[in-house]
Amino acid sequence: MPEGFIGEAEIIAIGSELLTPYRTDTNSLFLTEKLNELGIDVVGKTVVGDDRERLKKVLSDTLGRADLVICCGGLGPTEDDVTRETAAALLGRKLKRDDALLRRLEARFRARGLEMPANNERQAMVPEGATQLENRIGTAPGLWLEAGSKIVLLLPGPPPELKEVFEKECLPRLKPRARRRRMVTRVLMVTGLTESDTDDRIAPIYKQVDNPTVTILAAPGEIQIHVRGKGATEEDAQALVDELAERINEKLGKYVFSRNGARLEEVVAEQLLLAHKTVAVAESCTGGQVAQRLTNIAGSSAYFLGGVVCYSNDAKVWWTDVPASLIEAKGAVSQEVACALASGIRKRSSADFGIGVTGIAGPRGATPAKPVGLVYVAVADAQKTEARMYHFPGDRARVRKQACQAALEMLRRRLLGS
Amino acid sequence: MPEGFIGEAEIIAIGSELLTPYRTDTNSLFLTEKLNELGIDVVGKTVVGDDRERLKKVLSDTLGRADLVICCGGLGPTEDDVTRETAAALLGRKLKRDDALLRRLEARFRARGLEMPANNERQAMVPEGATQLENRIGTAPGLWLEAGSKIVLLLPGPPPELKEVFEKECLPRLKPRARRRRMVTRVLMVTGLTESDTDDRIAPIYKQVDNPTVTILAAPGEIQIHVRGKGATEEDAQALVDELAERINEKLGKYVFSRNGARLEEVVAEQLLLAHKTVAVAESCTGGQVAQRLTNIAGSSAYFLGGVVCYSNDAKVWWTDVPASLIEAKGAVSQEVACALASGIRKRSSADFGIGVTGIAGPRGATPAKPVGLVYVAVADAQKTEARMYHFPGDRARVRKQACQAALEMLRRRLLGS
Repeated sequence: MPEGFIGEAEIIAIGSELLTPYRTDTNSLFLTEKLNELGIDVVGKTVVGDDRERLKKVLSDTLGRADLVICCGGLGPTEDDVTRETAAALLGRKLKRDDALLRRLEARFRARGLEMPANNERQAMVPEGATQLENRIGTAPGLWLEAGSKIVLLLPGPPPELKEVFEKECLPRLKPRARRRRMVTRVLMVTGLTESDTDDRIAPIYKQVDNPTVTILAAPGEIQIHVRGKGATEEDAQALVDELAERINEKLGKYVFSRNGARLEEVVAEQLLLAHKTVAVAESCTGGQVAQRLTNIAGSSAYFLGGVVCYSNDAKVWWTDVPASLIEAKGAVSQEVACALASGIRKRSSADFGIGVTGIAGPRGATPAKPVGLVYVAVADAQKTEARMYHFPGDRARVRKQACQAALEMLRRRLLGS
Repeated sequence: MPEGFIGEAEIIAIGSELLTPYRTDTNSLFLTEKLNELGIDVVGKTVVGDDRERLKKVLSDTLGRADLVICCGGLGPTEDDVTRETAAALLGRKLKRDDALLRRLEARFRARGLEMPANNERQAMVPEGATQLENRIGTAPGLWLEAGSKIVLLLPGPPPELKEVFEKECLPRLKPRARRRRMVTRVLMVTGLTESDTDDRIAPIYKQVDNPTVTILAAPGEIQIHVRGKGATEEDAQALVDELAERINEKLGKYVFSRNGARLEEVVAEQLLLAHKTVAVAESCTGGQVAQRLTNIAGSSAYFLGGVVCYSNDAKVWWTDVPASLIEAKGAVSQEVACALASGIRKRSSADFGIGVTGIAGPRGATPAKPVGLVYVAVADAQKTEARMYHFPGDRARVRKQACQAALEMLRRRLLGS
């Protein structure tokens, strides 16, 4: 068996359901992450249906382009599952029944009080010269085939099985074959800037270098900056990544809320726990989303005392003691009401911090003076209550997400200052 | 130009960012939906980076497999954008500058008070014999190329531009070339059954037929059943789909909450609006998610009066008048407290319906008698308060989602009965 180094991989996802408008292959994201850590680049990905002829063409084409080809799926027990036969035929290997494997499969079924369906015998067929990759979760073992300098891996399609087989059986075998190069990633999390704002500020920094590379992913109210670097060792790669990440971090300053990929609610939770502080929330246009995010985190009862979703004016009065006259005078969507919500909920719940959010999420409810996207966010503590006005772009869902993010960010900055 | 019918398409997504662990190609889902409606099957999808040699190989391989090849991305103004040049080279077409197009590009920049960067001149290069596909949103026009009986489409990568160009410029040209066959989809939405429960019940129905086909997608607390049928006309396809969808609907009965793909909160919102009823919510373990989903919908202030997230026992007492003695006696996670939350919030807010949710979302807070996943959901109206106990599998996020779904479903059934 030739022991050439593997530099480039392609991934083939097999399954007709992946060619419908409803499903995407996500196994390849996991595999890419793991391969990149070994210094192996993924240079192509293909999706093909449960079709012998097409798979044969695709596999043959792919073997012409990459050192390592990973096939995901199509190892099941039914007629639709054609990966094993097709790969064996293409590589000119006979399929032979492995009696020891067959007995293990039968034992699996017996252990669950079932008789093995005849179909599953197909899963005991192994191409000549293949190494079996044990699958501790499902019935289909993975298969490792070598052809000349190329490696072909056949992995089960269900993500938990694929992950298990790849991590336990493939990574240790691939590691010595990979180029002596490692890849490391760090993620900076940003809020309060748009994607193009962010890129304008940091492009002059990252465009100077080829390694690390920078990928910017944008969601409403949140920009992720992925810094990925390669090095001869993990330490080398980490040093390159850290150097660039810190330059980007300095450039963006207070807009960076996490330097290790943490979500904003995780950061705020950590701050509250460290400071032994508590929070309560009074939301109107975000409809419970701020509370929901603060309670996404295990153990949130230590810092989250409660929240009210006061959609109606009455609810604002009942639950947070906002004076009805204030709503009358200023309107429910106003800086004054945001402040009254924040300080009202704080007092009602005896929390250290109160958050108030009120705005026009749209598409209805806007007036010329108060357009869709107008949102006031306030944070109160025992000393002071501060509010900010925002104009968020986008539809109802985007406005709500950005408002939620702004509320958590305002609390984060208050906690930083305290 | 040969006028052969197009039966099978492949899609190539071009862009190095699509080969990182962070991004998936989603343009192909949109394209698949639209192509399927024309009766064109998508038989393969490939992702390739911004690399001339690799793209050339992939494009050449793909042209050997499909009648129609759609390339997405790589039409931008920079050196990284190689689709135009590579496709032209592979098909043996010279690139010529289109002066009229160049003037249009310059005018676009002028209209925004900008001078066109020299780079963008590349976007005015057009392969010989190509038809330009107008892009009303961005600068890169799409290109339609024919080679023998094959069609190659080059489309801009940003999803809004791709959608615009495909719908306005490609669909009308593809329609007369597609096989005289149409595809129609209907989506049944199910809750209260697992994926395998659902499949066990309906497989005997859909396995009898090849057309329509059925795809089952599962999320926590929600199963989507996609029924896709082909016919000579849209009416034929619709009739086949409706017939099978109604058989599945009858089989699943009350577990189907929508026969047209509507989300559970949309169904409940519609019911409340039609009945002129209002609702208020008191949530513990779902942390605001029920309120958030009920207010996701535009115009929700017509039926949603308010919600409280009473994480602490104190909050339960303050906001919903749950007797402290009841919490003491039965525990915060109990059927009695769920009922008291539902009826308490209903009375406090003068709503027609009150929803109460209390449970152990985990990973902490469990006891031998009250394990992670134990959730009580209650719905109250003026006549009665009813609660149900659930044991939901999975982690914190899954438990919360399933609890939220159960709460909305309980209200849906109550509204059905009333």
